[in-house]
Amino acid sequence: MRVGIVGGGQLGRMLAFAARPLGLEVTVLDASEDAPAAAFAPMIVGDFGDRGALGRLADASDVVTFDFENVPADAADWLEERVCVRPGPRALRVAQDRIAEKSLFTALDIPVAPYAAVDDTRSLTDALAVTGLPAVLKTRRLGYDGKGQCVVRSAEDAERARITLGGTDLILEGFVQFDREVSLVAARAIDGTVAAYPMVENLHRDGILHTTHAPAKPGRFDADASSFVAHLLDELDYVGVIALELFECADGLRANEFAPRVHNSGHWTIEGAVTSQFENHLRAITGMPLGETTALGPSAMVNFIGGMPDAAAIAAIPGAHLHDYGKTARPGRKLGHATVTAMTRDELATRVHALSKIADAASR
Amino acid sequence: MRVGIVGGGQLGRMLAFAARPLGLEVTVLDASEDAPAAAFAPMIVGDFGDRGALGRLADASDVVTFDFENVPADAADWLEERVCVRPGPRALRVAQDRIAEKSLFTALDIPVAPYAAVDDTRSLTDALAVTGLPAVLKTRRLGYDGKGQCVVRSAEDAERARITLGGTDLILEGFVQFDREVSLVAARAIDGTVAAYPMVENLHRDGILHTTHAPAKPGRFDADASSFVAHLLDELDYVGVIALELFECADGLRANEFAPRVHNSGHWTIEGAVTSQFENHLRAITGMPLGETTALGPSAMVNFIGGMPDAAAIAAIPGAHLHDYGKTARPGRKLGHATVTAMTRDELATRVHALSKIADAASR
Repeated sequence: MRVGIVGGGQLGRMLAFAARPLGLEVTVLDASEDAPAAAFAPMIVGDFGDRGALGRLADASDVVTFDFENVPADAADWLEERVCVRPGPRALRVAQDRIAEKSLFTALDIPVAPYAAVDDTRSLTDALAVTGLPAVLKTRRLGYDGKGQCVVRSAEDAERARITLGGTDLILEGFVQFDREVSLVAARAIDGTVAAYPMVENLHRDGILHTTHAPAKPGRFDADASSFVAHLLDELDYVGVIALELFECADGLRANEFAPRVHNSGHWTIEGAVTSQFENHLRAITGMPLGETTALGPSAMVNFIGGMPDAAAIAAIPGAHLHDYGKTARPGRKLGHATVTAMTRDELATRVHALSKIADAASR
Repeated sequence: MRVGIVGGGQLGRMLAFAARPLGLEVTVLDASEDAPAAAFAPMIVGDFGDRGALGRLADASDVVTFDFENVPADAADWLEERVCVRPGPRALRVAQDRIAEKSLFTALDIPVAPYAAVDDTRSLTDALAVTGLPAVLKTRRLGYDGKGQCVVRSAEDAERARITLGGTDLILEGFVQFDREVSLVAARAIDGTVAAYPMVENLHRDGILHTTHAPAKPGRFDADASSFVAHLLDELDYVGVIALELFECADGLRANEFAPRVHNSGHWTIEGAVTSQFENHLRAITGMPLGETTALGPSAMVNFIGGMPDAAAIAAIPGAHLHDYGKTARPGRKLGHATVTAMTRDELATRVHALSKIADAASR
C-alpha cells in the first residue's frame, strides 16, 4: 500500500521510518527537499497549498495523511476529492481554529477553561468579563510551541497583547490553575476500534514540551480523559492517531487542545510501548488492526531544543535511546529527543536527571 | 560520524535504519542499486572487490563495517589501509574459511565436532576416520543458510557428495547429536568492554533459520558460552557485534560457527531487548558506550522465507512486529521477519504458533 504524508518534519520522518518495515511505500510532500523525512522517503517538493504538488502526491498514494495540522483545509478538501485522506479534513479544520476546537469540546461535554473570541477592543472587554484575570490571549490559528500567545494580567496588558498578536482573530482563555499537564494519545481504526496509550505527564518549558513521563502516575480523572478522547474520535469519525492535551485541576480535567496527528508526547511509545504511535497511525490509516498500546515499563522522553547533545553522552545513560532528526540547529528548534526506559521509577528518575542535564547543557 | 557499510542486504538495511536516529551518516556499497538498504541510505553501486567503489566508500566514511562476511579478505585489507575497518579483516578471514574457524575455536579451547580438511578422495578417507559416520561435508568457503553442504551416511555417500560440492576445498565435520541449537550475540567496544545478549534458541528448517526464541530457557552450559564468546572477541581484538552458533549436547556445547556481524538470531533485539544488536554494533564501531542487552521479556522471531505474508494478518497478532525487507520474492529467500513479544511464555507460545502458521502458509 502507498502512503502519502503531507509534511516532512520529524513526525513525517518517524512515520516514514515506521512505514518501511510494514512494507508500506511512502511519499512525502514538503516545501524543502532536505526535510527530515527525506532520509527515509522520496520527496515531492512544494508548498502545502500547491495543487500541482498535491496532485502528484495523490497520484503516488492510496491514502494520504499529515504530519502537520496547519495544512490549508481547502487543500485537504481538494486532496480528499482525489484520494483517501485520513484523518479527514474536518479534524484538521477544527484543530486549526481554537474557537472551533473549544466549541467542539463544549458540544461534547468536554470541560474547557472559559473562553471568548476577540476581534477588537470591544470584544476583548466582553471576553475579559467571561474569563476573568489572569487570562491567556492567543491567535485563533497557527499557534504552536507557545508561539502566538501572551499571558495577560490586566485590561491594559490585554489590549497591548491584542495589538501585538495582530488585533483580530484571537481567543481569550481563562488561566487554568492546574496540578499537572497530561495528554492522552489514542488511535482509532476504520471500524471504530479505539486503542489508547496510557496517560502521560508533560512538563513544558517556555511553551515547548521539555519532558514526558510515561505512564503518568494514576490520577483521579483518568477515566474521564479516556471518555473525552473516545467521544472526540467518534464525533470526528476519526481514523489514525490523535493526541488530547489536558490540564488536571483539583476539580477535574480541562481540555486544552487536540492534535490530529502523532504527537511529541507520544514519542516515548517507540521504545516504551508494545506498538509505537507511528506504527499505530499507519496501521489505522491503511486498514490494519491496531497494535497493543501497553507500556513496557516506566519511561520518559526529553526533547533536544536548539542544540543536539553529544551522541556518546546519551549512549552512556543506561536505557537511553537517541533520536536525531537530522535538522539544522536553530535556537528554540526541536532537533531530536531521547527516550529513556528503566525497570523501576527510581531507576528512571536517576536516568531522566542525567538525560535532562545533558539536554539542558546543549539547549539554546 | 560517517559509517560505510559493505553490503546492502537486510542486515545493511537494518544497520542503516538504526544509524539515522543516532545522527550517523551512512553510505552503503552493494552490487545492486535496489538493495534493501537503499531505502535508508545513499548507495555506491559496485562489486565488493571493486577498488574504485571501495575507494569511494572509504572516502565517504570514517569507519567501514560489513553486513556480509564473504567480502574478499584482500578487499577488506585494501580498505583497511585507507579507512578504519571494524571488525578488522582478520575476523572476516577466519569466518570465511571453516578450517581456519575450527582451528581458532580449538586454539581457544572452544569445543567443536571432530573435523578434517577434504581436498581429494584420499583426504576424504582420512577425514572419515576422524569424524566417523554420519558426518557433514561442507565447502570450506561461501556456505550459508544450509547451502554448500551434504549429510553423508556412508563412504560412498561421502565420495558422491565430494564430487557434488566441487571435489576440493571441503571440510568433513562429525555429526553432532544435539539437544538444541543456541546462539549468543555479543558486542565488544573499542576499550574491550563486552555486552552479551541472553542466549537464544534457534530452530532451523531446511538449513535456514526459522524461529528464534529469546531468551532461551536457561541451560547447564550457558556460562561456558559466555566465556567462549569473550575469548573469541579478545583473541580477534574485535570491535562490533559477533554471533556464535553452538550446539547444546548432553555433555556440553560444541561451537558450530561464528558470524563477524549482526545476525539473524539477533533480530529479536529490535523489540525484545533494551538496545538492538544493530544499535550496539554501531555504538561499538563509532566508539560510543555499549547499550544494555537485557531482554524486556520473552520474545520470538520468525523468518519469512520465499513469500511475505499479508501485513494485516501479522498486525492482528498481539505483540507482533513486522519487518519487510522490501526484497523481490524468490523461493528460499529471506524476505522479512516478525518478532512477537509477550508478558509470559505461555502467552508467547500462543502468539508464536499463530505467527508460524501465517509464515509457513506464505513460505515458498
